[in-house]
Amino acid sequence: MDFSQVLARRRMVRNYTDQSVDEGALDRIAASALRAPSAGNSQAIGVVVVTDSQVRSDIAHLAGEEGYVSAGFDPWISGAPAHIVISVSETVYRDRYAEPDKLGPDGQVIEWPIPYWWVDAGAALMAVLLTAVDEDLAAGFLGVHSVPDLANTLRLPDDHIPIGVVTIGHPAPDRRSGSLDRPKKTKGSAIHRDHWGEDD
Amino acid sequence: MDFSQVLARRRMVRNYTDQSVDEGALDRIAASALRAPSAGNSQAIGVVVVTDSQVRSDIAHLAGEEGYVSAGFDPWISGAPAHIVISVSETVYRDRYAEPDKLGPDGQVIEWPIPYWWVDAGAALMAVLLTAVDEDLAAGFLGVHSVPDLANTLRLPDDHIPIGVVTIGHPAPDRRSGSLDRPKKTKGSAIHRDHWGEDD
Repeated sequence: MDFSQVLARRRMVRNYTDQSVDEGALDRIAASALRAPSAGNSQAIGVVVVTDSQVRSDIAHLAGEEGYVSAGFDPWISGAPAHIVISVSETVYRDRYAEPDKLGPDGQVIEWPIPYWWVDAGAALMAVLLTAVDEDLAAGFLGVHSVPDLANTLRLPDDHIPIGVVTIGHPAPDRRSGSLDRPKKTKGSAIHRDHWGEDD
Repeated sequence: MDFSQVLARRRMVRNYTDQSVDEGALDRIAASALRAPSAGNSQAIGVVVVTDSQVRSDIAHLAGEEGYVSAGFDPWISGAPAHIVISVSETVYRDRYAEPDKLGPDGQVIEWPIPYWWVDAGAALMAVLLTAVDEDLAAGFLGVHSVPDLANTLRLPDDHIPIGVVTIGHPAPDRRSGSLDRPKKTKGSAIHRDHWGEDD
C-alpha cells in the first residue's frame, strides 16, 4: 500500500472478526518493530507475538477487559486473534553507553536527558501499527495496569519492561473511544516555524 | 512510495547536499507527527520546523557539532537545510488523566506504569523519519546534551520538552556511525512466540 495511505488510515480499532491472521503478515508486523531506530544501536527491543488463546485471555484479564466490556465495549482484547507486545530493556541502553565510544569528554557515563528506551519503543510501536495497516489488518493498543504481571505472563527477562499490548485482527465495527470526542488540536497550534508561536 | 519500501529504506543519514527542501514536503513531514497515537487523545506533541540558518547553527552548537566534526564526521547538523524538533508535554497527559473519564475505579488519578508521553513522542518521531523517506529525502536524529537550552532556543512553552533534533535534507555520502559495527541482533533473539524464549 502507498505509504501516505497507510499513514492516513492508521487508527485504533477496538473490535475484530474471528478470522485468524495470516502467519506471514504477523511475521512482517513483528519484524517491523526492529526497523525503528535505537540510540547507540542498542537494539534493546523485544517482541512477543501471542496467538495462544490462553495467553491472550490472561493478557485480556490483566488489561482489565472486564472493565471495557461493562463500559459497553466489545471484548476486543481476548477477541483479537493476535497480540504483539513490545518490550524494552533500559539496562541494555545503560550498558551500551558505558562502552568506551559513548563516554563523555571527561570519560564519564553521560546523563540521559531523555529516556530514549521509551522513545525508541514508541518508534517500534508506530512501525507495528503502520505495518498492520499495510497488511490490510487493524490494530489497537492498550496499556496494562500491572506491568510486572504482564512481564511474568510472557516470561520476559528481568530487565525487559512491556510497554503495552498491540491487538491485531481483521477489523469489525467498533465503539469509538470517548477520547475521540475531545476537540482535535489544529495543525497551527501544534506545528511552528523556527520558533514556537512565531507563526501563530 | 510503497510502505514496505519506505520502511526498508529508513536509516540515519548524517550528511546532506546544500539543496533546500521543498516546503510542501516539509509540511507533510511535520504533519505526520500528528498521525501518531496519543494516550487518552492527549495530543500533547509539538513540532518546530527550523529552516532559519541562525537557529540551525544554534541547534548544531547545542548538539555538539564541533565534537562530531573533530571525530571526522561532516557538519551534518548545521548543514542540514531543515531541522524538525518534536516536543512533548507530560503536564498535558497528567491533566488529561485527571479528567473524570480517566480516573481509576476508586476515583483517583491512575499511576503511570509507563511514561506514555515519551512513547508517543517516539511514535511521532518514527512517523517523521518514515515520511522523510517517502518524500525522497533523508533524515538523521540526535539528542542534545542541554535540553533546557534547546527548549529556550526554540522558545518552547515551559511544559514542553524537546526529545531531540531530526535533520532533514537531500542525502549526500556520509560517514557511517561506529555504532553500526556492532553485531546485528538476530530476529530470533528479539522476536518470540507466545512467551519469551519458547521458540529459541
